[in-house]
Amino acid sequence: MTENHAAMIEQLGRKARTAARALAASAPEQRNRALSAAAQAIRQAEPEVLAANRRDLDAGRERGLSSALLDRLRLDESRLEGIAAGLEAIAGLADPVGRVLAEWTRPNGLRIRRVAVPIGVIGVIYESRPNVTADAAGLCLKSGNAVILRGGSEAVHSNRALHAALVEGLKAAALPAESVQLLPTQDRAAVGALLAAHRWLDLVVPRGGKSLVARVQQDARVPVLAHLDGNNHLYIHAAADPDMAVEVAVNAKMRRPGICGALETLLVDRARLDLVPALVDRFGEMGCELRADDGVRAVDERLAPADASDWETEYLDAILAVRVVDGPDEALAHIERYGSGHTDGILTEDEAVAEDFLARLDSAIAVHNASTQFADGGEFGFGAEIGIATGRLHARGPVGVEQLTTFQYRVFGSGQTRP
Amino acid sequence: MTENHAAMIEQLGRKARTAARALAASAPEQRNRALSAAAQAIRQAEPEVLAANRRDLDAGRERGLSSALLDRLRLDESRLEGIAAGLEAIAGLADPVGRVLAEWTRPNGLRIRRVAVPIGVIGVIYESRPNVTADAAGLCLKSGNAVILRGGSEAVHSNRALHAALVEGLKAAALPAESVQLLPTQDRAAVGALLAAHRWLDLVVPRGGKSLVARVQQDARVPVLAHLDGNNHLYIHAAADPDMAVEVAVNAKMRRPGICGALETLLVDRARLDLVPALVDRFGEMGCELRADDGVRAVDERLAPADASDWETEYLDAILAVRVVDGPDEALAHIERYGSGHTDGILTEDEAVAEDFLARLDSAIAVHNASTQFADGGEFGFGAEIGIATGRLHARGPVGVEQLTTFQYRVFGSGQTRP
Repeated sequence: MTENHAAMIEQLGRKARTAARALAASAPEQRNRALSAAAQAIRQAEPEVLAANRRDLDAGRERGLSSALLDRLRLDESRLEGIAAGLEAIAGLADPVGRVLAEWTRPNGLRIRRVAVPIGVIGVIYESRPNVTADAAGLCLKSGNAVILRGGSEAVHSNRALHAALVEGLKAAALPAESVQLLPTQDRAAVGALLAAHRWLDLVVPRGGKSLVARVQQDARVPVLAHLDGNNHLYIHAAADPDMAVEVAVNAKMRRPGICGALETLLVDRARLDLVPALVDRFGEMGCELRADDGVRAVDERLAPADASDWETEYLDAILAVRVVDGPDEALAHIERYGSGHTDGILTEDEAVAEDFLARLDSAIAVHNASTQFADGGEFGFGAEIGIATGRLHARGPVGVEQLTTFQYRVFGSGQTRP
Repeated sequence: MTENHAAMIEQLGRKARTAARALAASAPEQRNRALSAAAQAIRQAEPEVLAANRRDLDAGRERGLSSALLDRLRLDESRLEGIAAGLEAIAGLADPVGRVLAEWTRPNGLRIRRVAVPIGVIGVIYESRPNVTADAAGLCLKSGNAVILRGGSEAVHSNRALHAALVEGLKAAALPAESVQLLPTQDRAAVGALLAAHRWLDLVVPRGGKSLVARVQQDARVPVLAHLDGNNHLYIHAAADPDMAVEVAVNAKMRRPGICGALETLLVDRARLDLVPALVDRFGEMGCELRADDGVRAVDERLAPADASDWETEYLDAILAVRVVDGPDEALAHIERYGSGHTDGILTEDEAVAEDFLARLDSAIAVHNASTQFADGGEFGFGAEIGIATGRLHARGPVGVEQLTTFQYRVFGSGQTRP
């Protein structure tokens, strides 16, 4: 990090602080107007945004980006309309700011109110998907926060074009243009300066792969809402409904094997090993490879063997590890040892066992008789999410607009002095 | 930090994790039993604790500690009884674990419950007061968290004696002795290793002076609940009740000038400069020095002049800065520039002005017509506090047992799969 970078971040940070104060004082209607106007501006700027995106795609091809990366980077009419509609959907959410979270009166007559307020200035650091530029800005704006965005260098032109439209929306609603700022350089040292800027940044949200998140966690001098692994488990308990267990497990793995809420290891109670042939059939039909321990393989010889590394692996692919366990305690011990605290659950018809199991799981999301793929802000009813937090503080699980607020105590008295 | 320190922290950390799981699964009655038994053990160990404390005091005198430091370090029968009674008071608080914070049902029938759960393993780093050993351990235990304590080297024998009594309490309740661990070395590098141990520590709480807190914030790779400055303000608005304004201001400064909730700068609206002589009289009677800007001094020539540094100073002493402002906007601008976001407020009979002012304050605690000295966990009804958090995330303001919990989502289904 050079002094130049620190100076640049200070400049951005001061503007963001000023904008954050204006946002905190703004009416929800004003912020919603900015979101709707930004959506319109994105639609109107379609030719410019798609042209900018073509520049990014051309440069990406020249640099030899993989087809998967190029696909993430690609915008078209339909994806752009999705981005615009996403901003309108965020505008339509309930206002998260000003909610009275609690209120009580003390014996001395002091009335204490806990009120949701914006966090302040949020940094969002992400990779190649340009839609994050609009999504993250929209969620921060809705919750009254100023945001400093740093997208991947592959998407630099797309991000600038989308940012210009977002600024148009802010201006249309008479909100400061600096409510949404884009880091003006792709220099990696600038990210280091941003992560160290605890005076200007109240929170940083990394959105991307493990190495990005790990670097942010290592370097940040500001609080981080990080999304780490989702090495998720389901435990088929002795009292599980057979058909439900198979269908929920298949959905948890195969609906979209690449998302963080996807199932990675299935734990089968010894008393439910009778389900193994059905599991092998159904997962086989779906094209999913099963890797099992000896206890499970003894039931069905079609299964490939798992080794120790399988329990630790977040495949994010059509591969599932399967292991036999002797009861809930052993299932919990396995999850405790190998799980990542994202989303884990149990399949059982025994409500008491389920309540106890969920309470003993040390996971952000603990699930009974449902697919782990419900680990999602939209499915929780949050409307939209900036990610799934796997840390333990402030927010755990889906991070939507409410989770992008903090709170303030407002104490109302009538002249009370403390004795 | 050496490898030895990291290995030692790993050893402590593993034990703490195991203890934390046992605590999370324990019944509240069991944790309360441990607290009560620890209180009894402290009473029974009075001769040993006081003897250990005398060793610390003797060593402190030899090392030339100030009388203020020696007083903080000193235990006697009455202070020890206070420590024991404090643990019993914590035992009597409502259980913060398992509270249902929210519950809703999705259109697909999924029932989502947000439940308070312990944070896990908490590190508490503090200075010379040995009572913190028992207070911090008690609050962590009550909230189901394992704790690793690191007290000041001046109090090492006192802390060990108190720790032994706490462990007796844990054993009497059949809870793991490792629920409360004391860092076995006073080596400062061990603190560095602790602060870096994000695998073993979920949160660190520094309790002490600015340099300690700053060091922890700089070095920590785990979330920090820090208490920074309390450069607190009250603004006497044009519509303030004259008598109330004077009495509240005097209490806010002079009840205990050395606590973090003490008033440090009084802002007087130009329309209420008529109060200045009464303020000078009352503060003078109380032995408080006033330092004022020219606008205030023009009213009363008895006043000493303030310079720019006074607005930035947390005196923690019988000194108060006083400044004239032209209306709420100027008061807010002053607080924004010089305040520390701890506790600030307004004195006015105009409810609408008060609501607006509080909403625009960027302070953890915003006060209307009451003393800033109410910034205290006990006064909020939290029963006991480990400190006042001045950060923006997870907890702001007083940190009691509820603030030492986080939450988990428990999702109850009936076989739902995600389409």
